[in-house]
Amino acid sequence: MVPHLITALTGPINELEQRILESLPAIERWFRLEWMEHTPPFYTAVDVRNAGFKLAPVDTHLFPTGFHNLTDEMLPLAVQAAMAAIEKICPEAKNLLLIPDRSTRHGYLMNVERLVRIFHQAGLNVRLGTLDESVTAPTPVALPDGSALTIEPLVRQRGRLLLKDFDPCTILLNHDLADGVPAVLQNLHEQYLLPPLHAGWGVRRKTKHFQAYEELAKKFAKMLGMDPWLINPMITRAGRVDLESPAGLDALTTHADALLSKVRRKYKEYGIQEKPFVLVKADDGPDRLGVLTVREARDVAVLAERARVRRAEGQAPAEPGDELFLQEGVPTHERINDAVAEPVVTMIDRYVVGGYYRVNPERGADENLNAPGASFVPLAFAESNQLPRRGAKPGASAPNRFYMYGVIARLAMVAASYELEATDPDAESYD
Amino acid sequence: MVPHLITALTGPINELEQRILESLPAIERWFRLEWMEHTPPFYTAVDVRNAGFKLAPVDTHLFPTGFHNLTDEMLPLAVQAAMAAIEKICPEAKNLLLIPDRSTRHGYLMNVERLVRIFHQAGLNVRLGTLDESVTAPTPVALPDGSALTIEPLVRQRGRLLLKDFDPCTILLNHDLADGVPAVLQNLHEQYLLPPLHAGWGVRRKTKHFQAYEELAKKFAKMLGMDPWLINPMITRAGRVDLESPAGLDALTTHADALLSKVRRKYKEYGIQEKPFVLVKADDGPDRLGVLTVREARDVAVLAERARVRRAEGQAPAEPGDELFLQEGVPTHERINDAVAEPVVTMIDRYVVGGYYRVNPERGADENLNAPGASFVPLAFAESNQLPRRGAKPGASAPNRFYMYGVIARLAMVAASYELEATDPDAESYD
Repeated sequence: MVPHLITALTGPINELEQRILESLPAIERWFRLEWMEHTPPFYTAVDVRNAGFKLAPVDTHLFPTGFHNLTDEMLPLAVQAAMAAIEKICPEAKNLLLIPDRSTRHGYLMNVERLVRIFHQAGLNVRLGTLDESVTAPTPVALPDGSALTIEPLVRQRGRLLLKDFDPCTILLNHDLADGVPAVLQNLHEQYLLPPLHAGWGVRRKTKHFQAYEELAKKFAKMLGMDPWLINPMITRAGRVDLESPAGLDALTTHADALLSKVRRKYKEYGIQEKPFVLVKADDGPDRLGVLTVREARDVAVLAERARVRRAEGQAPAEPGDELFLQEGVPTHERINDAVAEPVVTMIDRYVVGGYYRVNPERGADENLNAPGASFVPLAFAESNQLPRRGAKPGASAPNRFYMYGVIARLAMVAASYELEATDPDAESYD
Repeated sequence: MVPHLITALTGPINELEQRILESLPAIERWFRLEWMEHTPPFYTAVDVRNAGFKLAPVDTHLFPTGFHNLTDEMLPLAVQAAMAAIEKICPEAKNLLLIPDRSTRHGYLMNVERLVRIFHQAGLNVRLGTLDESVTAPTPVALPDGSALTIEPLVRQRGRLLLKDFDPCTILLNHDLADGVPAVLQNLHEQYLLPPLHAGWGVRRKTKHFQAYEELAKKFAKMLGMDPWLINPMITRAGRVDLESPAGLDALTTHADALLSKVRRKYKEYGIQEKPFVLVKADDGPDRLGVLTVREARDVAVLAERARVRRAEGQAPAEPGDELFLQEGVPTHERINDAVAEPVVTMIDRYVVGGYYRVNPERGADENLNAPGASFVPLAFAESNQLPRRGAKPGASAPNRFYMYGVIARLAMVAASYELEATDPDAESYD
C-alpha cells in the first residue's frame, strides 16, 4: 500500500534531493566512516518533516514503538538488520529479555509482538519481562489479532536480571524510563542492557541531541556544498522555567521572539512566504504540557495556563519548573487523504528498515502530530530507502524522496550516537 | 509473483521442516558461531533439490550469475547485505571494479546490471572492466531494457588493477576463471580481490566442497537429532578418467555401481519406492561433457561416446582424461506449470537475499536442469527465508519451506568457506 502523497516540492528540496542522489556513494561512505568510530543506537526512529523548502528531523526516539506500522514486506530487512546487530553485540546469544513499556494500548502491544517476531526470527529465544511489580506470575495479554503475549515478572539475582528458568545475555528495553530508572535495572554489569540506561529520559536531553545534530548537519552540508539550515531545525535551550512566575514567562517570551526572528531572517533569505513558527517542547522527555506551536512570541502565555491547570489537578512536578526548549517549526506539506502527515523512519543498528506516516487529521501543518487523533499509515519503503531511482526527475519519484528521508534520519541517528557517547557515565576519559 | 508449486511432501521432509522451525534459535546461533571463526564467501548461489524425502544442495556457485532473477522487492535486502559486506572488508571504499564474464547473453548482462545497481546503492562508484583484450576503449553494451552498460579495458599498473581514471580498492569478480587465471589478475596484493583467485575452477574441486559439506551436515544433523543423509547428497570422487579407454570406463562403471548400491540401501531403509540414480559431473568446473544421469551402472558408456565426439570435433582437452565425480541423484518433485523446477538460493555475505526457481520443461525430475531450455522464475522470498510462519502445519506453508531452503543453502555456504580456507595458498600454517 503506497499512500497517495502530496508534497509541496518547491526549489530547495528538489535541489537537495538531486544533490543527495548525485552524492550517494560519498554519503554512504561518510556513514561507513562514522560507524567505524561510533556505535549506532540499538534501534532508532526519527520523525522527519518535509516543508518543501526544508527537510529536517524533529524528534529522535531511542525506544521506538512503531514497529507494527512497518509493512510485512519490510520484515526481512528488519530481521537481517537485527541479525547484524546481534552478531556484533553478542554472537553467542541465546536468550533475549525484552522489557516493554507498561502501556496496554493495542497499537503498543502489536509493536511488542512485532519486536518479539523480529528477534525470534533473527535467532533468539525472546521472552517478555515487566517492570510492573503487580505482575507476580506469567500473565497472558490478548492481542487484537486474537493471539497473545505472555508477560512475566522480573527476577533479580545479584548482578543479573532473569525470568524464571530464563537467563538472558541481552536485555532489550522498549521503555523510555521517563519516570527514572527502577532499582531492578541498576547495576547490571554482567549482561548487555540495550539501549543503555543513559538513553532514558532521566539523563537524555533533546537539546543535547539537536546540538550534536547541528554539528553533523554542518559537516554534512559542507560535503554537499549547501546551507546546513536546509536540514537543521534551529533550537534554543530555555533551561528550567517556572511557567507560573512572570519572570519565567518573560524569559520564555524573549527566547521565542529571538528564535522567531532568526527563522524570519532565513525565510526572507530564501523568499519563503509562509508564516514562521516555533515549538515549545519539554527538553527532558515526554511533553507533559503538550507541544505548543508559537506563531507570535506572546503565544507562550498558553503554557502558564496549562501549568496552572496541572497544579490545580495536583499533577505539578516535584521539582518546580519545567525543562523546556524551543525548536524552529518545520511545516509539513505532506498530506494523506487531506490529513497532515509526517514520515517516521525506523532503523535497527545502522540500517533503515522501514518507515510509516504519522497522520493527524485534527492537526495543522504547523502543529505537533504526535498527539491524540494520530494514526499510522505504513509506507512501502521496499522500493525506497536504499533504492533511489536513477534518472528520475527531482521531486518526481517517491523512492528518491524516501532515500533522502533515510539519509536525514540516519544523520539524526549518528547525532544520537554522539549524544550517548557524551553522556555515557562509564566512558573512559582521555583528557 | 509466487509461482504455483507442487511439492511432494512426504514424511521425512515434513519432519525435517518441523525440526528446523523448532530449532530456529539454535540454528541461527550455530551459524553466528560459525561466522565468528570463518569468513563467508563474498556471494554465493546454491542449487537446492527437494525430493520430498530428502533436501540437499547439488551445486554451489561462488560467482553467481542470477541476480537479475531476484524480485525487485528483494533488492533492499541485497543492498543491505552488500553494505554489511563492504563495511567489513573495506569501510573506506569508494570505488568498486566489477569484472564480468565475457558472456553477452541478455540474461547475463541483466545480472551484471543488477550487480552494478546493488553495489552503487550500497554506496560505491562501480565500473566494469573486461578481460577481453579486444576491448581497447570504453564500449557501450546495449541491454534488453533499452539501457546500456559500459565495459572498459583493464589497466595494470605494477601491483594494481585500474581503469582509466579509476583506482578501485576492491575488485569483484563475476567470472569463474574456468580457463585459468589471466596474468592481469595475478599478484594483486594491494587491492581486495573478491572472491579470491582460488575460488576459480583452476583450484576449486566440487568433491572438496561436498566433502566439507558432508562434515558440516553431520554436525548439523547431530544438533537436530536426525540422519545427515536427509540433507547430504552422497558423492564418490572418480579422479581423472580417460573415458576413451576401457580401463577408464570400467573404473567409472564400478564407481557408479557402488554409489547406486549405497543409494539403494538408503531408499530401502526409508521405504522409498523411487528408482535410484546418480549423476556423473565434472569435478573441476563447467560440465563440458554435460551432466549424465545414470540409472544403471552401464549407462556411463554414454560418456565414452560423448568424449569420442568431442575429439572428433577437435575439442579434446589438452591433458588427457576428465576429472569426474559421481553424485547421488536427488529427484526434484517441485513443478512450476508442469515443468521440473529447482530452487536457487542467492546470498551476499552471510545473508540470504533472495531466490528463484530454475525451470526446465525439457528435462525430467532426475536430470540436471542447468542446461539449454532452462528459464527462471523469481521467487517472492520476502515472506520467506528469514520469516518462517509459526504454527503453520509442516509442509503446508511456503514461507516455512523457503526458510528451510535458506538453512540448507547457508550450510553449503559454510562448507564453501571451509573449502576456501583449506585451499588458500596464502593461509598461514599452524602445524
